[in-house]
Amino acid sequence: MKISCRHRFIALVSVCVLACSANIVPAADDPLPSWQDGKTRQAIMDFVRKVTEAESPDFVVEAKRIATFDNDGTLWAEQPMYFQACFVFDRIKALARQHPEWETKEPFASVLKGDLKAALAGGERGVLEMVMATHAGMTTGEFEQIVRDWIASAKHPVTRRPFAGMVYQPMLELLDYLRANGFKTFIFSGGGIEFMRPWTEKVYGIPPEQVFGSSVKTRFELRYDKPVLVRLPEINFIDDKAGKAVAIQQHIGRRPIAAFGNSDGDLQMLQWTAAGPGPGFCLLVHHTDAEREWAYDRQSDIGRLDQGLDEAKAKGWTVVDMKNDWKEIYPK
Amino acid sequence: MKISCRHRFIALVSVCVLACSANIVPAADDPLPSWQDGKTRQAIMDFVRKVTEAESPDFVVEAKRIATFDNDGTLWAEQPMYFQACFVFDRIKALARQHPEWETKEPFASVLKGDLKAALAGGERGVLEMVMATHAGMTTGEFEQIVRDWIASAKHPVTRRPFAGMVYQPMLELLDYLRANGFKTFIFSGGGIEFMRPWTEKVYGIPPEQVFGSSVKTRFELRYDKPVLVRLPEINFIDDKAGKAVAIQQHIGRRPIAAFGNSDGDLQMLQWTAAGPGPGFCLLVHHTDAEREWAYDRQSDIGRLDQGLDEAKAKGWTVVDMKNDWKEIYPK
Repeated sequence: MKISCRHRFIALVSVCVLACSANIVPAADDPLPSWQDGKTRQAIMDFVRKVTEAESPDFVVEAKRIATFDNDGTLWAEQPMYFQACFVFDRIKALARQHPEWETKEPFASVLKGDLKAALAGGERGVLEMVMATHAGMTTGEFEQIVRDWIASAKHPVTRRPFAGMVYQPMLELLDYLRANGFKTFIFSGGGIEFMRPWTEKVYGIPPEQVFGSSVKTRFELRYDKPVLVRLPEINFIDDKAGKAVAIQQHIGRRPIAAFGNSDGDLQMLQWTAAGPGPGFCLLVHHTDAEREWAYDRQSDIGRLDQGLDEAKAKGWTVVDMKNDWKEIYPK
Repeated sequence: MKISCRHRFIALVSVCVLACSANIVPAADDPLPSWQDGKTRQAIMDFVRKVTEAESPDFVVEAKRIATFDNDGTLWAEQPMYFQACFVFDRIKALARQHPEWETKEPFASVLKGDLKAALAGGERGVLEMVMATHAGMTTGEFEQIVRDWIASAKHPVTRRPFAGMVYQPMLELLDYLRANGFKTFIFSGGGIEFMRPWTEKVYGIPPEQVFGSSVKTRFELRYDKPVLVRLPEINFIDDKAGKAVAIQQHIGRRPIAAFGNSDGDLQMLQWTAAGPGPGFCLLVHHTDAEREWAYDRQSDIGRLDQGLDEAKAKGWTVVDMKNDWKEIYPK
């Protein structure tokens, strides 16, 4: 069918009118430039619109616009191992001189030989031993400085990028977009709370008081009349799975209206969010891009996404297909 | 000495000029109208000025203007017993019908007979039993509603005021004044976190995510596919004494630059605040007004202020003399 010039003109005007009435912003002001046009991006924008437009039946006052994000695999990468594990191995190497006994003691000996597979063969107990040897015994201030130094200098074993350069550009845009719409953004991560706080404000724009994670116990001490908090080799809280919902209530005391995760460890956070009295937006980042990032889900030891995929489908949650939904992965 | 009219005129002009140069606001805009002129009020205003004026050597960026407040005895009254104890006794009476065994079982039997002294004779173990019987076994949502209903209806045993009417007017002004100057205000209380959150936003302007207190453990459960958090009869955290410094690091991850308390339970919070790298303002509310409120300090079982008074003197912390520093106690 041949379309006349007049018809094309009318069509063009109609598109403009529709675009204006739907508040589609010009490309230059696009809040989510790294997100491909499509249903994922649209679902996010539709949700934000319906909770922020005063006349919307789903309008939510600003104080209640709470959004919670997992960190590993949701805001930054997590392969071939959680980045905090790289930190643990780097710290073991750095501390080896003070621990000559590690040369023959597992799992430390294997780490020092560079055999990470053997180092992890001892299972959970060995991992815990390595975590405690590197995360406890110093003050909170000392640990903060150790993390600051590490994040400023360490490089990812595969990409050779600084770890803070492996945050996801589309998620940075999403954080900004939500905050520009009155949301308060929080992190609830299985990772260490004090491993994240030294850099999350600069990298994600999320201040320490909005960052929650797993933690060791601390002890208040007066050292020559000066108070310090000493990090103890004892788990305080594991912020994973059901622990995320527990921690959200403990830390925020208000139910999120939006939650963002990528693994089964985030499932209860999403369930808790979805079950609120008002609108609840749930999103899972599905790692489908073996070329630009990694592709993994149901079978992965790290960031396994199995039950979550089924539940997302059953409940109509938004699933990001990283390969097709994201124009960029990392910041340029 | 006789002062000429001309001299008086010059003196008046001088005072005006001095007032303007010191940014003294006209009485109508006074941010602390219930605070008597004097050194306490001046110390507060001097501190706020020095951390907020851009050219001040002690200037602190807004994100780091963290102020933490104790609740009982600092923001609201705590005599003749912590208000949460009144809640416990009221709940025991309300629940008695479901617990016929309480008629003969201590400490419940004494509560039901109105003999609170006998009810407390069992010491810590009896208190814990009463707390758990009234604070656990329900979901977080159910407990929130119980607290909402109680705070809306219960009356103080002595003043017959609603409990939320026994907050301190000067402290409400102080909270507003700090927030108007870019501070983020937090509560760190030995009282129950979920006992405060249902009303702190309305009464103090402090949202739930900025309220921290003692807590019981909770368990995530799916009930017919609907997630709930069930409150368990098990202590999770006691937010008192050294626990306050531990909790501040855990919850905020940043050291306060101002802390406000009234008892030895707040001492470590103040020590932690005072020991920061920059300016740290510490204030204790000293209950000296037996007529309008209560007078107590070193010998009191509730809100004992003993070591704190000594340390405040030694370290030059600000001590509010309630009788002489406050024009009003409660809101009108």
